Amino acid sequence: MCPIATGLNVVLPFHPSGSRVFSTTPLVQLKEFFPRTETRKIVNTETSWRHPVYTSLFTQRFSEKQMRDIQVAHREARDWSDWVALGTVRFLRRSTDFATKYRHPPEKNVQNRADDFVMTERKWLVRFIFLESVAGVPGMVGGMLRHLRSLRRMKRDNRWIETLLEEAFNERMHLLTFLQLAEPGWFMRLMVLGAQGVFFNAFFISYLLSPRTCHRFVGYLEEEAVLTYSRAIEDLEAGKLPKWQDHDAPNVAIQYWNMPEGHRKMKDLLLYIRADEAKHREVNHTLGNLNQKMDPNPYAAIYKDPVDVHPTKGIDNLKPHGWERKDAI
Amino acid sequence: MCPIATGLNVVLPFHPSGSRVFSTTPLVQLKEFFPRTETRKIVNTETSWRHPVYTSLFTQRFSEKQMRDIQVAHREARDWSDWVALGTVRFLRRSTDFATKYRHPPEKNVQNRADDFVMTERKWLVRFIFLESVAGVPGMVGGMLRHLRSLRRMKRDNRWIETLLEEAFNERMHLLTFLQLAEPGWFMRLMVLGAQGVFFNAFFISYLLSPRTCHRFVGYLEEEAVLTYSRAIEDLEAGKLPKWQDHDAPNVAIQYWNMPEGHRKMKDLLLYIRADEAKHREVNHTLGNLNQKMDPNPYAAIYKDPVDVHPTKGIDNLKPHGWERKDAI
Ligand SMILES: [Fe+2]
Ligand SMILES: [Fe+2]
Ligand SMILES: [Fe+2]
Ligand SMILES: [Fe+2]
Repeated sequence: MCPIATGLNVVLPFHPSGSRVFSTTPLVQLKEFFPRTETRKIVNTETSWRHPVYTSLFTQRFSEKQMRDIQVAHREARDWSDWVALGTVRFLRRSTDFATKYRHPPEKNVQNRADDFVMTERKWLVRFIFLESVAGVPGMVGGMLRHLRSLRRMKRDNRWIETLLEEAFNERMHLLTFLQLAEPGWFMRLMVLGAQGVFFNAFFISYLLSPRTCHRFVGYLEEEAVLTYSRAIEDLEAGKLPKWQDHDAPNVAIQYWNMPEGHRKMKDLLLYIRADEAKHREVNHTLGNLNQKMDPNPYAAIYKDPVDVHPTKGIDNLKPHGWERKDAI
Repeated sequence: MCPIATGLNVVLPFHPSGSRVFSTTPLVQLKEFFPRTETRKIVNTETSWRHPVYTSLFTQRFSEKQMRDIQVAHREARDWSDWVALGTVRFLRRSTDFATKYRHPPEKNVQNRADDFVMTERKWLVRFIFLESVAGVPGMVGGMLRHLRSLRRMKRDNRWIETLLEEAFNERMHLLTFLQLAEPGWFMRLMVLGAQGVFFNAFFISYLLSPRTCHRFVGYLEEEAVLTYSRAIEDLEAGKLPKWQDHDAPNVAIQYWNMPEGHRKMKDLLLYIRADEAKHREVNHTLGNLNQKMDPNPYAAIYKDPVDVHPTKGIDNLKPHGWERKDAI
């Protein structure tokens, strides 16, 4: 069996009785990844990057429908830069699938697929953790390089930095959430270390060369992320992931997404994360359509006509292919 | 004359009549550094990093006194790591003074000092712009490296990242504010480029080696920044900078600091910036006192006893030497 797939020790045996082991005893389970923040004087820490609440724009209420409506999508490559981005994502995709022994169901009749390709809860977690540990890199590199460019060229940045850094933070929260469910073994840690070393440097240099291609690349990467989480949700709803069937989402997730009561299960968690990925897909495809040096960030913009449909921080008006420049600004 | 000092073209001739040339005609003057954000659909952009309002904790009102009370201070070096940090700052300080032909008044009787060392408005701006273009680096590097470490080691960060990135953003706003007052020439731009290239790499490697020393280094750097702005304020109040005497602060500054009416002059701007630097001085000396891997960020903390004096995001309870670990957490 592939060593990455085995490089994961599920720390939280999913209790056979279905009792909520870790949402009721957080202290035990927070030990490793969420060590006690509490000190003599401090109760807890609080983020200044709140997650936008996924509510309907009209009712201002939590709307599961919006999250359910998210679709797998693909923006056609239109030029040379798009093809470079898409080709790189396809190559990475294939390598990762091979390494994590993953394959999307090759045929409708998934009952017949080889045992190796049946995705268990553990194999999904391996894939999620590996992907999320890499996904936090691009936003941070993009934000940092735009910050340094603004300082060095003495020009304003038009507020792209914030959106990029918030994306990086959001991806890190995905990772920390999954780490509540499983503890990676040494081999997996080694792979993550190596992947970050290569990916950070490659993305750093690429972003200096062509930020537009890099945003397109992240757009395509997020198309894959939406696909991955959609498949996991399908599997879960088809009853193929029995251990997650009635499993609670970790407390850190409930707090971060502000998950409403009655929507705090593993299934809801996957819906939230998929919605985030769909948002990143839109944001990066949109940024890839803009003039990198001159255009304001549509996600930090105040629009002239507030009634006109425009990009938002939530998942209202979500455009899977991103906003064309003329529609966004 | 030194080329850096000459590498600055004041774009806004301070109108001899004292009329507020650029706060009444912002569009002309925003051309270069704040190019039109406005597009067909977008009015403006908005930050998600609001500056904490410098108000009194008790009256909840703007308090100029707090900003006036800020003192030049020095935290004694206590160990080897502190000495490395302090020595580096002193070396950099001397090099910059030499390059920008700056010297703090060598004697009380400043009337007698050589003409070369009389600080004019233009020479102050050269110094400010150069310093601020470098000052935005450490927070960004620290925040990025902690982010990457969290991803790669699969551990939570305890919320240091946000404070570091906000510091970097704040420094960039200082730079952009001064750029409203003067446009650097080619030589200055070249120096800034070179300084960033060297400083970014040096700080990156140093932060990997010893984050604690790096925070102490920034703490000492900010001691110098407080000193520099204090001297500029003294000069201004002593009537030595006639062009700034009744000059308005740029609009970008009024918005960013949310400067109350009646407090929107050049003098107020310098008070605000000095308060920011004093805050960075405290924050970095405090972080330098903490366990880098385990301790929560006191500036993102929720305190058990809200009445007990503790670190805040504003300039209440400002400690020039930073908080000792036992008092902070
Ligand atoms: Fe993610
Ligand atoms: Fe993503
Ligand atoms: Fe500054
Ligand atoms: Fe500073």
